[in-house]
Amino acid sequence: MKATAKAHTNIALIKYWGKRDESLILPMNSSLSLTLNAFYTETTVTFKPDLSEDKFFLDNELIVGDQFTKVSKFLDLIRNYADVPDLFAEVHSTNAVPTAAGFASSASGFAALAAAASRALDLKLDESTLSRLTRQGSGSACRSVYGGFVEWEKGTQDDGSDSYAVPVAPQDHWDVRVAAVVLSSVMKKVSSREGMKRTVETSPFYSAWVDNIPTDLTQIKEAIQDRDFERMGEIAEANCQKMHATTLAANPPFTYWHDTTLTVMQTVQGLREKGIPAYFTIDAGPNVKVLYQPENEEVVQQTLREIPGVTNVILSRSGQGVTYK
Amino acid sequence: MKATAKAHTNIALIKYWGKRDESLILPMNSSLSLTLNAFYTETTVTFKPDLSEDKFFLDNELIVGDQFTKVSKFLDLIRNYADVPDLFAEVHSTNAVPTAAGFASSASGFAALAAAASRALDLKLDESTLSRLTRQGSGSACRSVYGGFVEWEKGTQDDGSDSYAVPVAPQDHWDVRVAAVVLSSVMKKVSSREGMKRTVETSPFYSAWVDNIPTDLTQIKEAIQDRDFERMGEIAEANCQKMHATTLAANPPFTYWHDTTLTVMQTVQGLREKGIPAYFTIDAGPNVKVLYQPENEEVVQQTLREIPGVTNVILSRSGQGVTYK
Repeated sequence: MKATAKAHTNIALIKYWGKRDESLILPMNSSLSLTLNAFYTETTVTFKPDLSEDKFFLDNELIVGDQFTKVSKFLDLIRNYADVPDLFAEVHSTNAVPTAAGFASSASGFAALAAAASRALDLKLDESTLSRLTRQGSGSACRSVYGGFVEWEKGTQDDGSDSYAVPVAPQDHWDVRVAAVVLSSVMKKVSSREGMKRTVETSPFYSAWVDNIPTDLTQIKEAIQDRDFERMGEIAEANCQKMHATTLAANPPFTYWHDTTLTVMQTVQGLREKGIPAYFTIDAGPNVKVLYQPENEEVVQQTLREIPGVTNVILSRSGQGVTYK
Repeated sequence: MKATAKAHTNIALIKYWGKRDESLILPMNSSLSLTLNAFYTETTVTFKPDLSEDKFFLDNELIVGDQFTKVSKFLDLIRNYADVPDLFAEVHSTNAVPTAAGFASSASGFAALAAAASRALDLKLDESTLSRLTRQGSGSACRSVYGGFVEWEKGTQDDGSDSYAVPVAPQDHWDVRVAAVVLSSVMKKVSSREGMKRTVETSPFYSAWVDNIPTDLTQIKEAIQDRDFERMGEIAEANCQKMHATTLAANPPFTYWHDTTLTVMQTVQGLREKGIPAYFTIDAGPNVKVLYQPENEEVVQQTLREIPGVTNVILSRSGQGVTYK
């Protein structure tokens, strides 16, 4: 009735951008990510027959409101799957994902929650099933079930039964590094949920985004298999810019970029002009993640730290999938 | 054999972005602009039977190289039109278009050159013909033949005979103001000519850009007729962002924006949140032009001048079309 699991967050190199089903969290396009070792959530779930409702503690603090509701609704899925709809749980999570790093702690959070809760109920899920369940907590979380490079196959079924992540290359396949560049934080005006929705519904560029994903995916998977860093970086950087371009064409238009976002992007391109292969990617927020190779860690880190407006640079590398204690 | 003409530059509210014919300068999409009074070129053309080639003076300096070749090739068009292919000219131009303002002086330049040269040869061209000829010097220059709000109809003929500008609303229709926000200048990495070409050839978003222009044009012309400033501004600001979005999806991707470009865009949106209607538009470069109403001139100017990285703010209003001395 009790289990502890740890899951890492991930950074998408081919972005998940747009839902075809809001309640089942089914994406319009497949995506591909790298699981990151520096950012994780560890969660212990204990189902207790004497509880009349769930309890959720995050970093030792009792959580109420929307964040609690999301966790409790997700536990409903697991309870229903295990056919114990009236069994409630106490959940204790610790987050090693600095919120200010602009990483969605929801990715590691829901992956760890799904793993711990299903293990606590002794469900013995295979990883595909775990990924499919995790997806319904937070879309990109379904990729965090695996380590290394991971693809989330969008699937075609209305019930989401074929929409889950699959491993592309294991954690030790290739030592690619990621620097998370943290900017002075300003509240996002458009949440990623709202941003996706507005883009899907109003951007005239959105259908071309979806149409181009299969090519991007095929090419980046080849680059990953070949360990071709520059090819992989080029595809990831271009894919991220296409995603952000769709928002500029939405109605009303919007962007997640700030002035310093542009500065970091151009600094990374400047590194390449100096012969240092580095590539950026940006999620639905102003922070930038920079891909680089181990031998360039010092110069990349140094260069990024010197940019005015950058408050922190956090280094990471390929991380593992869900583990249990 | 001698004539002097003056033409103003213009700012596109619906952007010209992409050529369907590089040598005739035929656009993929129609566009719409406002002619601006603050920026102009004055040109005197004197055809002289004793010259064995053209001579071009810009601000009293003899110009050679590419810039001269462009002027001389354009004079070939006028000479051929007048059936005097061996008659060369001396051209004296003065530019009141600060290059650093990021305005294409080619727009006012070729409009003034076409007007002065055709008048010097006593061609008595109607304005459509003058606009059509001007287009072959520099695309957006064809709009500078007229004052006020002007549409460049892309046309459908292969020979370009139906691709020229037409007036939408005269100079005195509506007192709309434009602040040209000049940023510390950095050399453009991608010229607008190269940028258009790469976007047309490689951006998966380009066809949706073209498809959406007729709607943008219909709506902005209604807003101009109704003198609905907020509607006009919204359409122009969205159209500019769509144009820049197409470049982010090109292969390789690129952007004309700098960090301060983003700051100015967000400052303008911040003005609106304070109840001051102001809207931005950006051409193929980092500088920003801000549309505002006369009653807000002080606050808009002040706000823009205070942005770090802004080196100058030049105010303009609706200007007139080609005039002769």
